[in-house]
Amino acid sequence: MLNQSRIVIENIAPQINQGTVCIKRVVDEIVNVTADVLTDGHDVLQTSLLYKHKSEKSWSEVRMSPTNNDEYIASFQTTKQGFYTYKIEGWVDYALNWQHGIGRKIDDYQHVNSELLEGAELLENIVDKVSKDEKDYLNFLIQIFRNTESYGEAVKEATSRKLHIIFKKHPEKLLTQTSNEYQVYVDRKKARFSTWYEFFPRSASEQEGKHGTFNDCHRLLPRVAQMGFDTLYFPPIHPIGEVNRKGKNNTTNALEGDVGSTWGIGSKHGGHKDIHPELGSLEDFKNLVNKAKELGIEVAMDYALQAAPDHPWVKEHPDWFKWRPDGTVQYAENPPKKYQDILPIYWESKDFKNLWKECLETLFYWIDCGINVFRVDNPHTKPYYFWGWIIEQVKKKHPDVLFLAEAFTRPKVMHQLAKQGYTQSYTYFTWRDSKHEIIQYMNELTKTEQREYMRPNFWPNTPDINPYHLQGAPESKYLQRYALAATLSSNIGIYGPVFEQMIDTPIPGKEEYYMSEKFQLCHYDWFKENKVTFLISRINQIRKENESYQQTNNIQFLETGNDNLIAFYKWNQEKTNETLTVISLDAYNSQSGSIQIPIHQLGIHNGQKIEVEDLVTKNCFNWYNEWNYVELHATLPFHIFKINK
Amino acid sequence: MLNQSRIVIENIAPQINQGTVCIKRVVDEIVNVTADVLTDGHDVLQTSLLYKHKSEKSWSEVRMSPTNNDEYIASFQTTKQGFYTYKIEGWVDYALNWQHGIGRKIDDYQHVNSELLEGAELLENIVDKVSKDEKDYLNFLIQIFRNTESYGEAVKEATSRKLHIIFKKHPEKLLTQTSNEYQVYVDRKKARFSTWYEFFPRSASEQEGKHGTFNDCHRLLPRVAQMGFDTLYFPPIHPIGEVNRKGKNNTTNALEGDVGSTWGIGSKHGGHKDIHPELGSLEDFKNLVNKAKELGIEVAMDYALQAAPDHPWVKEHPDWFKWRPDGTVQYAENPPKKYQDILPIYWESKDFKNLWKECLETLFYWIDCGINVFRVDNPHTKPYYFWGWIIEQVKKKHPDVLFLAEAFTRPKVMHQLAKQGYTQSYTYFTWRDSKHEIIQYMNELTKTEQREYMRPNFWPNTPDINPYHLQGAPESKYLQRYALAATLSSNIGIYGPVFEQMIDTPIPGKEEYYMSEKFQLCHYDWFKENKVTFLISRINQIRKENESYQQTNNIQFLETGNDNLIAFYKWNQEKTNETLTVISLDAYNSQSGSIQIPIHQLGIHNGQKIEVEDLVTKNCFNWYNEWNYVELHATLPFHIFKINK
Repeated sequence: MLNQSRIVIENIAPQINQGTVCIKRVVDEIVNVTADVLTDGHDVLQTSLLYKHKSEKSWSEVRMSPTNNDEYIASFQTTKQGFYTYKIEGWVDYALNWQHGIGRKIDDYQHVNSELLEGAELLENIVDKVSKDEKDYLNFLIQIFRNTESYGEAVKEATSRKLHIIFKKHPEKLLTQTSNEYQVYVDRKKARFSTWYEFFPRSASEQEGKHGTFNDCHRLLPRVAQMGFDTLYFPPIHPIGEVNRKGKNNTTNALEGDVGSTWGIGSKHGGHKDIHPELGSLEDFKNLVNKAKELGIEVAMDYALQAAPDHPWVKEHPDWFKWRPDGTVQYAENPPKKYQDILPIYWESKDFKNLWKECLETLFYWIDCGINVFRVDNPHTKPYYFWGWIIEQVKKKHPDVLFLAEAFTRPKVMHQLAKQGYTQSYTYFTWRDSKHEIIQYMNELTKTEQREYMRPNFWPNTPDINPYHLQGAPESKYLQRYALAATLSSNIGIYGPVFEQMIDTPIPGKEEYYMSEKFQLCHYDWFKENKVTFLISRINQIRKENESYQQTNNIQFLETGNDNLIAFYKWNQEKTNETLTVISLDAYNSQSGSIQIPIHQLGIHNGQKIEVEDLVTKNCFNWYNEWNYVELHATLPFHIFKINK
Repeated sequence: MLNQSRIVIENIAPQINQGTVCIKRVVDEIVNVTADVLTDGHDVLQTSLLYKHKSEKSWSEVRMSPTNNDEYIASFQTTKQGFYTYKIEGWVDYALNWQHGIGRKIDDYQHVNSELLEGAELLENIVDKVSKDEKDYLNFLIQIFRNTESYGEAVKEATSRKLHIIFKKHPEKLLTQTSNEYQVYVDRKKARFSTWYEFFPRSASEQEGKHGTFNDCHRLLPRVAQMGFDTLYFPPIHPIGEVNRKGKNNTTNALEGDVGSTWGIGSKHGGHKDIHPELGSLEDFKNLVNKAKELGIEVAMDYALQAAPDHPWVKEHPDWFKWRPDGTVQYAENPPKKYQDILPIYWESKDFKNLWKECLETLFYWIDCGINVFRVDNPHTKPYYFWGWIIEQVKKKHPDVLFLAEAFTRPKVMHQLAKQGYTQSYTYFTWRDSKHEIIQYMNELTKTEQREYMRPNFWPNTPDINPYHLQGAPESKYLQRYALAATLSSNIGIYGPVFEQMIDTPIPGKEEYYMSEKFQLCHYDWFKENKVTFLISRINQIRKENESYQQTNNIQFLETGNDNLIAFYKWNQEKTNETLTVISLDAYNSQSGSIQIPIHQLGIHNGQKIEVEDLVTKNCFNWYNEWNYVELHATLPFHIFKINK
């Protein structure tokens, strides 16, 4: 096919996997789009960014500006949740080209009679499309351009700013080239800023040894809210399998009274749409969800697609499991972990359409019960395209729903899940401990194309991971890890009671908790207050009050001259909130250094005063220099400074 | 649509503009393809590279190997000219997965009776597809896998290498995922290795002041061939316009006897399919082309799509020009240059289909006269998609035809022309003079994706460019510039007589030649021999004998410890020819330094002897160390070493 257009558009960014993957934004965020746009020769080209929300029929248009080296840029703001589409178009703008050309000839003292006649023709093409005022002006120009007696005036008006603005406002787009279309998925703000607290409802009882219930959880909600958490994540609350149930410490033979792993889902009491009877009723659960909502907390549900051997699916849908010639199903594995109490789903099943449908209906069922946040268990052991499909189905109907991918695996696998639509992703933060590791990882997350599709959620610990650096660590280390997570990443979470109370006994040599709550009830002094709980609450409060901590991508690390001091500058989209965080990575000794403040980004000159206000201690300091002395002690191993200019 | 496949394929390389642009190779070159291939969970995946020439019906397949971080690699060789297509497919390989799994369980001392039964089922699926020998083995396995009495033997055979090879050879591809298809255009070898000589036939007369003819050119051919040039490029040979003809030194009023610019094409004597009468007849031209061919030289024709005001097109196809209201056509410009003797084509013409067709037919006409190489004048002032179309039309019918893009303009414009199909491109080499500039530019050309689609052609000078660094330069500078061009780039060219004879008088302050041959006849002492001609011939001979100089991408710069000494290592695809080039950038003084030889790439250890043989002087040196002293004098400012191990 012959394409007569003279415009080439390429290298459009952002663009993930050739535009087959949506980039991610939240409401009111900016999308900056760049592209290389070329035409042959030297004519003036114009290029526009076009965008629209899926619900809109017509495109909004914003003219792009040249940066350099044939690149153009423009932006739009995502004001609504859901899918946006954007594309780029370009054209040779003959009117602007004419004005540019005649201007150069006039500057070169050339005679432009012929050019004025051309101009008159151009104006006649647009005179009927413009406003009354503009029309009068154009008719006047047509007249003087054609009258050699008004040559002097014509030459003056030909290059007028007024005419330029009319040309810009009423472009004649001829032989326009249009790019492919690219998509953005826009979430509600919580997708980007959330603070998670995890506990097992079955450990919520006041009475040690007694199985906790949803009703027991009620008394814990106000404290979780007061500490500043907005998302309460419960491990699975479904009936727990009785066949091959796990005993304490992951033993394969449960003893009488052993409660089993909450992830061994399904029993005679039901499956993924049912509630474990010992936790209470569906009504109790809904009441808890509603009560939490009143306190500003959303309950996040665990979505774990697997089945205990006595899950109803096993009998009702034997095709959803892979039966071996000996009549058994091989239990699940996530090497080196073995899940003898769990049968994996057989995703290659010929009956996969019904399987996918049931999985989707399970989500819809809980969404109808008031759940809008799902933490998905081991998503990397289920097919990628299944996630792409199911997340899209949910988002189309319920754009508020958020999905957190619990995949601790190889980088490209984690990226792929994010590309398939996961709202947030667990990360390697849990193991990144040194300054070098943290900066490298943050730059990977925020300075590469990952920033466009992968939203990190930083967890210092989880029920599965008792990291080596917390085992036997002093209080200061816990403060440091929480401060790091909460200031580096806008999405964070903790496996709450264990972290707060600094419980860290491991299975020897492993990064796992001894007497793990995954396999037994635990009992906590839920209302214990300590320095950790105090500072968690304070940091969470600071995050709520400072937008620079409500996003992860706008970060710049600062020189400190000390490998044990990490410092970074963050800012919100409008740059109305700027913070400077300094954290000591030494849990035992004092550390000092000189912080180089980013004077260019702050828009100040060296010698100009800034006030830094420690949002924890409320101490204020006036800094006049680019380099500023800071000293941190293990007793309070961080400064969280707000910058006041 | 539901996609049940468990495989994701992404990040395929090479891939230009999402696969819409062909990568380039010559016959017998290798294409290395990499991709990220993922599956969920821990099953064994397999992935293949499939490729075929356009003329072939079925795909060739090569299994890819993992590198790291979920990336796989495989290669194929392009053995024929024309278009190749490649794609990638991936699948979970249940047979290999079974063998891997049972092996791990056996190593873990687990009982694998059930797994053996599964294995027997797997084997039954493939037993009918294998060779007689393999079949006997598989039937034997099925038998022992199902017999508990042969458990010991079954366990041994289950993990056998023999079975592994059968599984690899007869994959059962289920739920396979296939990538998009990508294209390669394969040229004849000359696309990658060519040595151009440019002169104006009208200056070929023995008699000063007399207009040269094709017949005059005959006597020059043997010398051009003996000097080692394989491509003889003539500026346009078509009738030169008489209206607005240019005079000497680009004056706008030709005097009686002025011959005009050869690029002012078209007069009463005809247009793009005609010969300027003073050069001779079409028959003369064909004779010259044939004679050149006998000497191993191809004549390259200039393809300049523009018209003198008296070109026949102007009357026959007025729609192909843009007429202004005053009845004139604005002459061509390539700011700051003005071409008052040339009318540009109006590419927006409604009659563009006939225009494109005529342009194509012009190419076919000259191809039928024996021309297979076109140097295209100012292609960046004609639409990109026109080039994409016309080059594809030509290549489909005449895959031998090569196009050199004469675009000295902004980088992305030059890249775009290469992407549209140009075989070779003029480059910024003409202006890259310092070591830093040269290395940076070479790395851009050979280490970025440009290596896949843009083939540089290095010209130290052209009739349009008399670079400042050659103006008034000593002989050594000419030697240096030729040596740089000819060893850095496998495609090179010179504006011959002027370069050889070091004619460099500029228009004052400009990078243009005074009394430029573009606007007048010149007279040369064609058979003059000097050091420049001697060394050009010697270097051309070395290029013919050493494959490492017949390609541009395999280059590695070496440390020299001296900003005036540039050194690099080059190698051919099979690494059977390795060279080390050292060039002094100082045209006046001696320069010395220590060259760090690339011991890893050479596959030697420090202390191991290599012999470096200077291919110009025939001096040989034995080097035993990683660092080796080199000293160059302005009299012979380069070493071209062949490495003998």
